[in-house]
Amino acid sequence: MRAGSLEWYFDMKKTLEELAQIVGGKVVGDGKTAVSGITSIEFPQENCLTYLTDPKRLDELERSPLAAFIVPKDIQISKKPLIQCENPKLAWAILLGLFVPPQTYSKQISNQASVAKSAKLGKEVTVEPFALVGENVTIASSSVIRAYAYIDEGCQIGEGTIIHPHAMLYAKTQVGNRVTIHAGSVIGSDGFGYVFDGKKQAKVPQTGNVVIEDDVEIGACVTIDRATIGSTRIRQGVKIDNLVQIAHNVEVGSHSCLSAQVGISGSSKIGSYVVMGGRAGLGDYCEIGDEVTLGAQTGVPSKKVIPPKQVWIGTPARPYEEMRKQVSAQLRSYETQQLVSELKKRIEKLEKELSDLKAGKP
Amino acid sequence: MRAGSLEWYFDMKKTLEELAQIVGGKVVGDGKTAVSGITSIEFPQENCLTYLTDPKRLDELERSPLAAFIVPKDIQISKKPLIQCENPKLAWAILLGLFVPPQTYSKQISNQASVAKSAKLGKEVTVEPFALVGENVTIASSSVIRAYAYIDEGCQIGEGTIIHPHAMLYAKTQVGNRVTIHAGSVIGSDGFGYVFDGKKQAKVPQTGNVVIEDDVEIGACVTIDRATIGSTRIRQGVKIDNLVQIAHNVEVGSHSCLSAQVGISGSSKIGSYVVMGGRAGLGDYCEIGDEVTLGAQTGVPSKKVIPPKQVWIGTPARPYEEMRKQVSAQLRSYETQQLVSELKKRIEKLEKELSDLKAGKP
Amino acid sequence: MRAGSLEWYFDMKKTLEELAQIVGGKVVGDGKTAVSGITSIEFPQENCLTYLTDPKRLDELERSPLAAFIVPKDIQISKKPLIQCENPKLAWAILLGLFVPPQTYSKQISNQASVAKSAKLGKEVTVEPFALVGENVTIASSSVIRAYAYIDEGCQIGEGTIIHPHAMLYAKTQVGNRVTIHAGSVIGSDGFGYVFDGKKQAKVPQTGNVVIEDDVEIGACVTIDRATIGSTRIRQGVKIDNLVQIAHNVEVGSHSCLSAQVGISGSSKIGSYVVMGGRAGLGDYCEIGDEVTLGAQTGVPSKKVIPPKQVWIGTPARPYEEMRKQVSAQLRSYETQQLVSELKKRIEKLEKELSDLKAGKP
Repeated sequence: MRAGSLEWYFDMKKTLEELAQIVGGKVVGDGKTAVSGITSIEFPQENCLTYLTDPKRLDELERSPLAAFIVPKDIQISKKPLIQCENPKLAWAILLGLFVPPQTYSKQISNQASVAKSAKLGKEVTVEPFALVGENVTIASSSVIRAYAYIDEGCQIGEGTIIHPHAMLYAKTQVGNRVTIHAGSVIGSDGFGYVFDGKKQAKVPQTGNVVIEDDVEIGACVTIDRATIGSTRIRQGVKIDNLVQIAHNVEVGSHSCLSAQVGISGSSKIGSYVVMGGRAGLGDYCEIGDEVTLGAQTGVPSKKVIPPKQVWIGTPARPYEEMRKQVSAQLRSYETQQLVSELKKRIEKLEKELSDLKAGKP
Repeated sequence: MRAGSLEWYFDMKKTLEELAQIVGGKVVGDGKTAVSGITSIEFPQENCLTYLTDPKRLDELERSPLAAFIVPKDIQISKKPLIQCENPKLAWAILLGLFVPPQTYSKQISNQASVAKSAKLGKEVTVEPFALVGENVTIASSSVIRAYAYIDEGCQIGEGTIIHPHAMLYAKTQVGNRVTIHAGSVIGSDGFGYVFDGKKQAKVPQTGNVVIEDDVEIGACVTIDRATIGSTRIRQGVKIDNLVQIAHNVEVGSHSCLSAQVGISGSSKIGSYVVMGGRAGLGDYCEIGDEVTLGAQTGVPSKKVIPPKQVWIGTPARPYEEMRKQVSAQLRSYETQQLVSELKKRIEKLEKELSDLKAGKP
Repeated sequence: MRAGSLEWYFDMKKTLEELAQIVGGKVVGDGKTAVSGITSIEFPQENCLTYLTDPKRLDELERSPLAAFIVPKDIQISKKPLIQCENPKLAWAILLGLFVPPQTYSKQISNQASVAKSAKLGKEVTVEPFALVGENVTIASSSVIRAYAYIDEGCQIGEGTIIHPHAMLYAKTQVGNRVTIHAGSVIGSDGFGYVFDGKKQAKVPQTGNVVIEDDVEIGACVTIDRATIGSTRIRQGVKIDNLVQIAHNVEVGSHSCLSAQVGISGSSKIGSYVVMGGRAGLGDYCEIGDEVTLGAQTGVPSKKVIPPKQVWIGTPARPYEEMRKQVSAQLRSYETQQLVSELKKRIEKLEKELSDLKAGKP
């Protein structure tokens, strides 16, 4: 059945030369070699091309039915033809997109959709059946609103953006160009703000919105709350995996990556090029510097400031090197404790012996 | 763009006197001061009012274009006019709701919705396009069923309740008055109950339902499972943030707050006025006393009983004061271990020296 | 109100004899005893049957209005009639399903649904209003596509499968027979794959699909990503609780159980009959052996291999017995540290005394 999913690949044939030109690489060996698909090391399919960065695997893969490899410049010799590139994985990703082009859409407004008269839609916008576009929404050209997506009143959506099924954009959400929002994500619902009035939790009205800048990709079942006042803001090029929670008034800096199940509490600010591992979490009012990496399951307490470029991990979060030493100590904590008990006894014995000695006892 | 979202504010003007009267506060300074919006300290907009509890920030904010502050009674003097209140944040929240009233709905049943003939809908109920109301559902007056909400057969919904888009209420769910359920939340799907029959997991039918009492607010993409037998129950005034999981047969006591990504395993009982920080989790059959606070990421093992009013944190969860000492010890665990190694050597040296001394060696 | 949900039970009456025959059990006592419902120990309703495995609770339950008990073979005497069974909980689950049969569906294609002409639907398939079945989809007999479910182009669905409301099956997803997918789950959205090109994250096209084998049950708001190349695969009989994240190219072995909020990173392989507790997480490229148990909140680092049948827990994950000792040491880490400080002082004193003694000082 796995092979079944590869049927998409074999409609196209390209020579290695043609492919090298597309990615700006250099052919080593027969440039006329025909390539009929792009694959990964795990699936070494016949006549396919993959990328390879670890020279130790070269020998094994030369014996596979693969046609050729994309390699870094320091791999120069192989029994199979090569494309040498600066960034082999990037070249591979580009060619994969060439062989398996993205899904296309109808560029039509379905008459089973509900589109408000006051909405303004650009050229070649797709609105699938059962989608709902509210009052005063604007959608720029080539964007796609899939079935069951709800674009509530006053939302603005840029060009070439795809809103997948069951995504909910609450009122006044602003979405940039070339953004993808996957199925089931909820953008702009109320932040979790209450004041205790002595008897019950009184709601703080959540009056702001969410702004998503250009080239952002948001996974499935992600929740991003509107700001209490102002905007919750996801800056350019940010990538967000599935089931991530982003609270009110958060800002995520450009090109940062948030892995699945990450949670970010209210008013925290995340810099640019930050990477958060799976299920890392921030308390509220944190400030995470540019290019910081937070390991999987890291828990950063409220109001913590992490300087740029650092790698932190653990709960409570601390620099990776500290954590590494502490974890190694903790893994021996039982043995350490046993040793301490033993040392205590030896000290007691020494104390007694010395006391006896001083008292002239034998 | 942030300013854009503030356009909602400037339709209204009120004097400080009028506002003080609404919240039962006392004006200090010019009661005729005009206020055209409510804002937060982070966005000190012109002619706007905010609240302030930290007197240290007074000086800085007096130099802002803000019109006036809501303050506690111990702040008595300022260069700007003041409203003194018992609970400044509460007063601020009330006024914010006055200046930015909540979204309104059509009070009509869309002819693009699907409403069963046997369903009974009260006065001024809104049913948006593409919503689905099943057989024998009852919905009391002024409630709102938004697009793509599915109210399955036999559900009962009280007055003034809002079910946001893509919410799913499985059959027989009961929802009280003035409840809000945000987009994508799933109420009443099957609990995770299986019996291993020696070869496979056999399903335990999940025959109960979910009961949500009055004044509950449920965030986006929350999942609350129906009981195996009986009801999973969310009591009055509970507030639940996004992406929270509540398993079968759980009870959450009145006015408790569950932060984002919290998870509660089957049959656990949570008292009233409990606060669970982000991603705190309970094993099954736990009992959490009234007014307990669980810190972010706390993991409470199965069957644990936590007495009322305590603050617990960590995994496995323990009282905050213990945890604080233990974490501080763990942060030095590497140094402690190094010290223990050193002490061991010093003891060995002492033992040898003492032994030599006793043997009469120099 | 809890009683309200029990109304489903009382339509049927069976004798204990009849019920014992269905589950292959042996009656002890009056086989003519009438049973009008199945319940749990927590709700000892009149004339109902429940199961009981702990003989210590027998006395208390004999005084309840319950009609009879299903018990293991070592419980032989009771004041109430008994059904003795090999697996009492399994027998109870079977009888619960008899008394409370599952929800039924119309077996009709709603004319408010959108079904592509090229889709092939088997006999007695239900398609609810507002469901969407795309081009070239096949759905085998007796399956149910509920409202707002989106079955995108090229999906294949087996017999007797139920796709609940708001579930999204992206293109080319394959689903087996007797599968249940609960509301709001997203199957086959893009894996989280990017290559950093020096300035931004470039997308790696996600060209594979998701394959879900027979008898799988998937909870609400679960996300399972399509493979980059090949298939993400959920094998036969797997049970997945709510809000679980499964990344691209993961394989979950047959009959494994993943509790709520579990997260599995890319390319990890999980064996058969594995149990993952609530919110357990795997890094990428992990290999988890058959019959492994991972405790709640366990965090397994990338590339970790866990041998079959082991029980691991903690972050970083380690065998349960090690963890138990370490946690017990960590719970005393503060006291240990205090003791080490005290021992250090005592050693210093000893060193001085011994030095004095050797120097002939008193």
